[in-house]
Amino acid sequence: MPRNSKRSERMKFHHFIPTEIFFGEKALDEDGEIVGILGKRAFIITGRSSSKNGSLNDVLNLLNRMKIEHDVSHDMEENPSFSLVVRITDKVKRFKPDFLIGIGGGSVLDSMKAVAVLSVNDIDPIDLYDQGRYSKALPMVAIPTTAGTGSEVTEYSVLTNDETRMKGGFKSNLIFPRYSFLDPRYTLTMSMELTIATGLDALSHSVESILSTRSSEMSEIFALRANELIFQNLPKVLKNPDDLECRSKMLFASMLAGMAIAQTGTTIIHALGYPLSTFKNLKHGLANSVLMIPTLRRIEKSHPNRVAKAITPMKDVDDFEIFLKDMLSNLNLRMNLKREEMEEWARIGSKAKHLKSTPGDFGYEEILNIYEEMMKEYGEGDKR
Amino acid sequence: MPRNSKRSERMKFHHFIPTEIFFGEKALDEDGEIVGILGKRAFIITGRSSSKNGSLNDVLNLLNRMKIEHDVSHDMEENPSFSLVVRITDKVKRFKPDFLIGIGGGSVLDSMKAVAVLSVNDIDPIDLYDQGRYSKALPMVAIPTTAGTGSEVTEYSVLTNDETRMKGGFKSNLIFPRYSFLDPRYTLTMSMELTIATGLDALSHSVESILSTRSSEMSEIFALRANELIFQNLPKVLKNPDDLECRSKMLFASMLAGMAIAQTGTTIIHALGYPLSTFKNLKHGLANSVLMIPTLRRIEKSHPNRVAKAITPMKDVDDFEIFLKDMLSNLNLRMNLKREEMEEWARIGSKAKHLKSTPGDFGYEEILNIYEEMMKEYGEGDKR
Repeated sequence: MPRNSKRSERMKFHHFIPTEIFFGEKALDEDGEIVGILGKRAFIITGRSSSKNGSLNDVLNLLNRMKIEHDVSHDMEENPSFSLVVRITDKVKRFKPDFLIGIGGGSVLDSMKAVAVLSVNDIDPIDLYDQGRYSKALPMVAIPTTAGTGSEVTEYSVLTNDETRMKGGFKSNLIFPRYSFLDPRYTLTMSMELTIATGLDALSHSVESILSTRSSEMSEIFALRANELIFQNLPKVLKNPDDLECRSKMLFASMLAGMAIAQTGTTIIHALGYPLSTFKNLKHGLANSVLMIPTLRRIEKSHPNRVAKAITPMKDVDDFEIFLKDMLSNLNLRMNLKREEMEEWARIGSKAKHLKSTPGDFGYEEILNIYEEMMKEYGEGDKR
Repeated sequence: MPRNSKRSERMKFHHFIPTEIFFGEKALDEDGEIVGILGKRAFIITGRSSSKNGSLNDVLNLLNRMKIEHDVSHDMEENPSFSLVVRITDKVKRFKPDFLIGIGGGSVLDSMKAVAVLSVNDIDPIDLYDQGRYSKALPMVAIPTTAGTGSEVTEYSVLTNDETRMKGGFKSNLIFPRYSFLDPRYTLTMSMELTIATGLDALSHSVESILSTRSSEMSEIFALRANELIFQNLPKVLKNPDDLECRSKMLFASMLAGMAIAQTGTTIIHALGYPLSTFKNLKHGLANSVLMIPTLRRIEKSHPNRVAKAITPMKDVDDFEIFLKDMLSNLNLRMNLKREEMEEWARIGSKAKHLKSTPGDFGYEEILNIYEEMMKEYGEGDKR
């Protein structure tokens, strides 16, 4: 009885999200003192925007009020590299903090996770991918300032290998943040482009989580609600960037989508998007978005019900395509991809570990075809 | 703008459930070895039913396979008392385990939580209610064998003070189980009465969580799904007690309802139900159920929307009443309550800490009235 056995697969799951979450306006003001449990020395990892959106100031006020010694690193880059996290780790080792505080988007939080492990284990970044090589990490406080990454509630960190320029995620229960503070006010100053890119990143998490062969009744609870909230609120937030209620719902949705992939992981869409970020500078969320429709249309042939559920509450893939195009139309994306690049990436993609959790069959040809379909829409040329 | 301020209250929440959950058939077989992290000596707290439903056997096999030394206490009672947990604590102190394993319903899991604290802190049971009095607890593994308590994912334990015969819950982040294994097969052998009582306990958790003034967008995600699953599956499971799929959904729902109250707590319904359990031997879930309708009708007067949401997907309180009566009709409940008892309980209830999170105003008169309404339906006498 394949139908029953599938059903009971869906009622089988592992759920573990030990992060303590404080969500809401002024979360740090109201509950931030709990970080005192972690010690008297904190190292802050952040980028530049935290100085503008109020988050860094709130953290510094908190630490000063609590007389917690601190140092700050503003070194940051999109698609954080091995060399970046080594550089920050050196600073951290000199400062010897009791804990780390990451304030920023996915790049900041993922860097913090790598640094948390590297600073207390004598290993290289490449060893992060081998869980057996380390057994401890500095405790972390995550303060997301974009609504997309979900990294504040996951055990994942995605880094770029400088030499190969390949992006890859590592996974360890040690890198769940101990505390996460989600204050929607910090997301108010995001640019339109960042709002779209991060919002669509969150959406790719929830959609891919439901799509995943590892999705369960439990993970779907988070992912379906995230889908709903993003479809409703991303367009609203683009019209009214100062609407705190909608920003709040987007931040909540991205957290839920993070909780979903914390259980299921992502799919081939993420894997195929990585080279678009590292080689073509396309923001991670946008890279997932442009690959979404051609991939879903392919999976739909063999798994129509799963695809239908993954894009709930959208009626069908056509409707979802209209939604995505509508969002992306604000950005006028145009890409220049050589044939050889697509072939190379298709070769790499056809060996991605993400295929294990992606329904349907994807070989070299199918993946090349997805890149080609994507380029029909977003390639430079005389289309339209 | 009260409307907006209420909305943003709902987008403010604290979420923390550090328990690692393994859900599904053969969960212990497949993932049980993780408990090895906790040490080489385990003390099992259980009742009698674990010998019949297969759970104790699975645990013993696991411990033997892993060469983990163990001892078992079968001492158990409904509404576990201070003296019971002291008795088990004495045994635990003699055996000196590294961790505890609780196999059973809410009474077992709540007892384990008390014992986990009492065995490593030099305090009396009454001190459990003062979090400042203790700072550590033995790690715990929870294996629920009923679908109702949710205790496997909460920081609560409800005990009965032998002297006053009053039931009261204590709360501490220290008593979240470290691991929970939820195998629906262990719930197959529950009697009809226990299935109903525990199923309705889970339902009271999800309904009261939504009802609570502390409910949030986050807690509602769990509670609304639990409501749906219980309304659909409890009647099915009563018709087909061996239907593992429905049992599985009930176990899942009770876990979700537990995750909801882990954030919101319960309401006055729970508080008013306690004396019915301790003095009238009414099972906890049934006590909540008989008080549900009169309490909801009262709250509905001032908070109709909240009540409507709390009983979703039921159309209205009338429909919910039909559902509850239908479930309870299997049991032919009849209670004998003296006027003085109701008056005494109303006095106590009017000071319950649960009132803080219950919408609407409840004084002595209102509570007495709820007990009276309840007795019109379930009192001994010539009704019908």
